[in-house]
Amino acid sequence: MKNVPLVVTGYGHVGRAFLSLLREKAEDLERRYGLVPEVMAVARAEGCFHSGRPLEVRHLSRAGEAWTKGNPNWREGLGAGEVIAGLGPGGCLVECTVSNLDTGEPGLSYLSSAFRGGWNAVAASKGALVVGLPALKALAAANGAVLKFSGATAAALPTLDVGLVSLAGARIEGIQGILNGTTNYILTRMGEGLDYDEALKEAQDKGIAEPDPASDVGGWDTAAKMLLVTNACLDTAYTLKDVQVRGIAGISVGEVQAARKEGRAVKLLATAAPGRQGGRWSLDVRPSLVEPSNPLVHVNGTEKGITFITDSMGSVTLTGGRSNPRGAAAALLKDIINIYRPAF
Amino acid sequence: MKNVPLVVTGYGHVGRAFLSLLREKAEDLERRYGLVPEVMAVARAEGCFHSGRPLEVRHLSRAGEAWTKGNPNWREGLGAGEVIAGLGPGGCLVECTVSNLDTGEPGLSYLSSAFRGGWNAVAASKGALVVGLPALKALAAANGAVLKFSGATAAALPTLDVGLVSLAGARIEGIQGILNGTTNYILTRMGEGLDYDEALKEAQDKGIAEPDPASDVGGWDTAAKMLLVTNACLDTAYTLKDVQVRGIAGISVGEVQAARKEGRAVKLLATAAPGRQGGRWSLDVRPSLVEPSNPLVHVNGTEKGITFITDSMGSVTLTGGRSNPRGAAAALLKDIINIYRPAF
Repeated sequence: MKNVPLVVTGYGHVGRAFLSLLREKAEDLERRYGLVPEVMAVARAEGCFHSGRPLEVRHLSRAGEAWTKGNPNWREGLGAGEVIAGLGPGGCLVECTVSNLDTGEPGLSYLSSAFRGGWNAVAASKGALVVGLPALKALAAANGAVLKFSGATAAALPTLDVGLVSLAGARIEGIQGILNGTTNYILTRMGEGLDYDEALKEAQDKGIAEPDPASDVGGWDTAAKMLLVTNACLDTAYTLKDVQVRGIAGISVGEVQAARKEGRAVKLLATAAPGRQGGRWSLDVRPSLVEPSNPLVHVNGTEKGITFITDSMGSVTLTGGRSNPRGAAAALLKDIINIYRPAF
Repeated sequence: MKNVPLVVTGYGHVGRAFLSLLREKAEDLERRYGLVPEVMAVARAEGCFHSGRPLEVRHLSRAGEAWTKGNPNWREGLGAGEVIAGLGPGGCLVECTVSNLDTGEPGLSYLSSAFRGGWNAVAASKGALVVGLPALKALAAANGAVLKFSGATAAALPTLDVGLVSLAGARIEGIQGILNGTTNYILTRMGEGLDYDEALKEAQDKGIAEPDPASDVGGWDTAAKMLLVTNACLDTAYTLKDVQVRGIAGISVGEVQAARKEGRAVKLLATAAPGRQGGRWSLDVRPSLVEPSNPLVHVNGTEKGITFITDSMGSVTLTGGRSNPRGAAAALLKDIINIYRPAF
């Protein structure tokens, strides 16, 4: 049996879903993997929940809301880094803050202080990784720590596991994916007859699209995920500036419906393709006509999918995987298990 | 840099493809994973190729045939177990013999002697695993060794990686797959208008079906793979007798074509579904009508696919992956890398 101290940074939808899932899975984790995760702190911008004993949702929330005022477990001004330093090396940071794709903060600081303290980290937020993945990997390695981020690269769709574990030894010769559920939902509904504004409104009403959908419909969420998958699988250091991005706003319903009638589909495709003679890869995100023979043509609604093309293993396509906070939480938990479980 | 001594058992299509791939990938394995695999012996029923130095294809073959008579590297009567015992613990057996699904031999003896010698093992052959997976896993664990067998469970389609690594922590609530390329090819061609005998003959002419296709068309190859995936992912000990198996012989071309006209398809589906209240799972293989909404409906020709249904990650479907000897060799190599690579 191995106790795994955890510090969770960020207590939004994903952080809460993670704590709930941890409680639901506690018995299973001990029985199947010999692991006893213990949440020693949950950090927010203004302080930490921290009491010296493992925390559960009931210590942190009242009526579904974060409970700070009057909570004996709340330490105003305490930082995650201090908690980690106090606990000593070997634990795991669970990074669930809201991503800022320009600065990488606050995730960047949290991840850096975890590695400096000899902690591993799993991340569901993209910002820090988009801004500084190569530096973070180097810092982790220098401290004997491991960084995993399945939760940031399409949640429960196992993009990184397949690229890094299942295709180990193969040369990846191309990657193509539908990596954003919101835009895929909008395009699917447009194929069924709605115009762009109607489809977007429906997605917002259903809670699929955010009130400000710019990052999704502009293609930036897709671009960030493709960037992370590419940099992780190819060990490259491309930046968001290297990705050509075109979103789905302004796309014509006629085009989407015509494609559908022919068994094709218009999808917001992210593509990574090698340059000539070992040159730079080209990375782009754009609405694309997908042929009936492409397995991604069947990925509809909020589903996501990815295809890896390789030299020795052929093409492997993955579709599905829950993408709500519970799916992201399950991806975080999976990464933790794979860091700490015994060899198998 | 880590030297990894290997002993390859079986020198048929897969064994040869493995040696070729190893040579092709040598530089890459050292650069990307810090691994230097060294084939210290290749075992056949009558003896071993073994010279004390790492072997390559040119030491073992003449004009594409195994070269024993007059070959200074050939040791008649030498067994793989003796070589392993002489090398000491820490190497990896690469099991590529032809499977016997009833006795598990000769793989069962090879694998057992590897574990007793403190060696890990990767397997592309199913026989030993179908007959004795739980006992082999226990023996491996008792000797601090690891057993992986991606190559035996749909080659380059990463069924086990996804079930064991990507879905770690999730509860698998069902598995469904198209796990045999030959029968899927025959059914696909029947959908296109051929009758069963024509489609089978075409598959044989193309080298897709074997001269004796009984194991494929009878559903037994599919059943063996589903059994292995289920036992591996659920940690169960079902046997081939627990699988209800019906093959595709005698299936009517009218039925297959009618399904296709409606956007459905007849597929040889393997299904594992939980029993009530934690009871025994039901395992079956049979030709099934697949609905248009099922992602496996689009798996055509020699392609394979598998869907895992889970509690916390939704459904994840995988399709593709080369299934020829090169694909199986790539799966063996992948498993070796994942046993020996540093944590990442």
